[in-house]
Amino acid sequence: MEEKTKFLFEDWRTKLNFRLTSFLEEDDPATLYQPMQYVFEGSGKRIRPILLLLTCKAVGGNIEAAWDAAVAIELLHNFTLVHDDIMDDDDTRRGRETVHKKWTPNIALLAGDGILALSYRALLRTDSEHLKRILEIYTDGIVAVCEGQALDMDFESREHVQPKQYLEMITKKTAYLLNISAKIGAIIGNGSDRQVTALGEFAQNLGVAFQIQDDLLDITVDEDTLGKTFGSDVKQKKRTFLLNYALTHASTQSQQALLNIFQMSEIDNESIYQVRDIFESAGAISAAKESVDNYLSLANKNLESLNGNGENRHLNYLLNYISNRNF
Amino acid sequence: MEEKTKFLFEDWRTKLNFRLTSFLEEDDPATLYQPMQYVFEGSGKRIRPILLLLTCKAVGGNIEAAWDAAVAIELLHNFTLVHDDIMDDDDTRRGRETVHKKWTPNIALLAGDGILALSYRALLRTDSEHLKRILEIYTDGIVAVCEGQALDMDFESREHVQPKQYLEMITKKTAYLLNISAKIGAIIGNGSDRQVTALGEFAQNLGVAFQIQDDLLDITVDEDTLGKTFGSDVKQKKRTFLLNYALTHASTQSQQALLNIFQMSEIDNESIYQVRDIFESAGAISAAKESVDNYLSLANKNLESLNGNGENRHLNYLLNYISNRNF
Repeated sequence: MEEKTKFLFEDWRTKLNFRLTSFLEEDDPATLYQPMQYVFEGSGKRIRPILLLLTCKAVGGNIEAAWDAAVAIELLHNFTLVHDDIMDDDDTRRGRETVHKKWTPNIALLAGDGILALSYRALLRTDSEHLKRILEIYTDGIVAVCEGQALDMDFESREHVQPKQYLEMITKKTAYLLNISAKIGAIIGNGSDRQVTALGEFAQNLGVAFQIQDDLLDITVDEDTLGKTFGSDVKQKKRTFLLNYALTHASTQSQQALLNIFQMSEIDNESIYQVRDIFESAGAISAAKESVDNYLSLANKNLESLNGNGENRHLNYLLNYISNRNF
Repeated sequence: MEEKTKFLFEDWRTKLNFRLTSFLEEDDPATLYQPMQYVFEGSGKRIRPILLLLTCKAVGGNIEAAWDAAVAIELLHNFTLVHDDIMDDDDTRRGRETVHKKWTPNIALLAGDGILALSYRALLRTDSEHLKRILEIYTDGIVAVCEGQALDMDFESREHVQPKQYLEMITKKTAYLLNISAKIGAIIGNGSDRQVTALGEFAQNLGVAFQIQDDLLDITVDEDTLGKTFGSDVKQKKRTFLLNYALTHASTQSQQALLNIFQMSEIDNESIYQVRDIFESAGAISAAKESVDNYLSLANKNLESLNGNGENRHLNYLLNYISNRNF
């Protein structure tokens, strides 16, 4: 079963990549379309479109009707990446130069705007009697992502961010796009309102769980395990769930020790172990684990509420995949 | 009649400003919503929404159905201004600091994205059976604006830009938004396809005429006339119709003289007169005048093709206003 799901995802990913790389009908002016094409040719897990296709299928819909929306949601995701990379001034993305580094920030800004417009163009090709509702949900999603990004920017300059505020931020910044992907797929598949809501919440809960787990694995991962590198978030001074938790729950002395470490121009390996110990003693690691379990359990309940027909198996696969992830 | 039109526009502008300043339902996070509110409280001629309302009225429609779309098109215009100001690094806009100067480029980038999303939200509130078509036209408009901006960026770094290429650029960058404003208004008013097309072309032709006229007045305006300042485009080294024309049509010697002047760190008044003389002798001024007349005549034909019912009088006012503008 697991193999079948993996095969299905791989098949969809291939089809989606083909649609993305052949999406552009124009190449002039090159200043606009070359960076766009570069973005569309990048790799990616394509989680959001896969989720959209999955939920369409889960409610018994025909996924052929969902491809345009699947392309749209991936374009939307890429729009957020291009603009986020400008704001964070990141050099690389998925192993390649970011658009604003390869070209200029102005060109990346404009390419991002264009990709957002093209994502609406793709979505508008969806043949569904619920198109207006789909567009409303989609648009609300973009507003939420902007709010999440604004919160993220705010938090950068604050010493204390409560875990609850951090959760609001990651919900809006990353999990909400998963929510709307799942909802839109279910709507295109003519799912009931109950199904649409449950699948949206399922995806959002899964997204939050995944994000906290990511923060957690950074500091708990076995160094021999492939994939993640131990302490890379700490090295990059990222404001993770753990750091925010420790900065609001650790002893005053430990908080100061953390702040001192994060003010170092470069954080050495010894300090990373010290950070891990503070996270441990402040209860940040167990709080993160509890939070992941909590969101996964909510996601599981969302699935159960659908009174599982056979089409839920791929969604269950996603849930199990995240539950068992340790790399 | 003219007074009545002016009064109508003023009334609409007031109503629109009220809708814009009270549009936001959220104010948190402030990092996102404060700059947005700042933009919505700015002044502006509100040409695009007025045009949208006018064309709705011109085809006999009820303008009450067009207000959401009118707000949307003004938000869309403001999105382009906020992002353009980042790209051009302009300090002021309509007498106030630009968003990226008052806050930061990142905040302005994000606010622009948010405004674009909100513009779709406003448009989606339009009660029309043609909503899908309206959204398609709207989205095509955004893509065209991005293309126009890309061309504009390209031209900055080129010595020679043919007048034809310049016209394509201003058509996409500025006139096309007028085109879609007019089309969308006419569609909401349930105009015929013929009316929709003619009104869109009318607005686009008017927009191109206005832009070239703007370039022209900069260098031909009587210094005592209020409004425009003589030679300000030259001082700012703007790539106007006239400059592009002269750089492709003047004698080699004059072209070199122009290039020398535009390489000065600051262009003095004497040089502005020299530029004017080169424009004159290269035929740039007469070509610009001819081009304005040409586009106005096309706009006039677009109006005539509607077999004018009484509701065209306000559109005629716009046409006459631009025909007689000398400040």
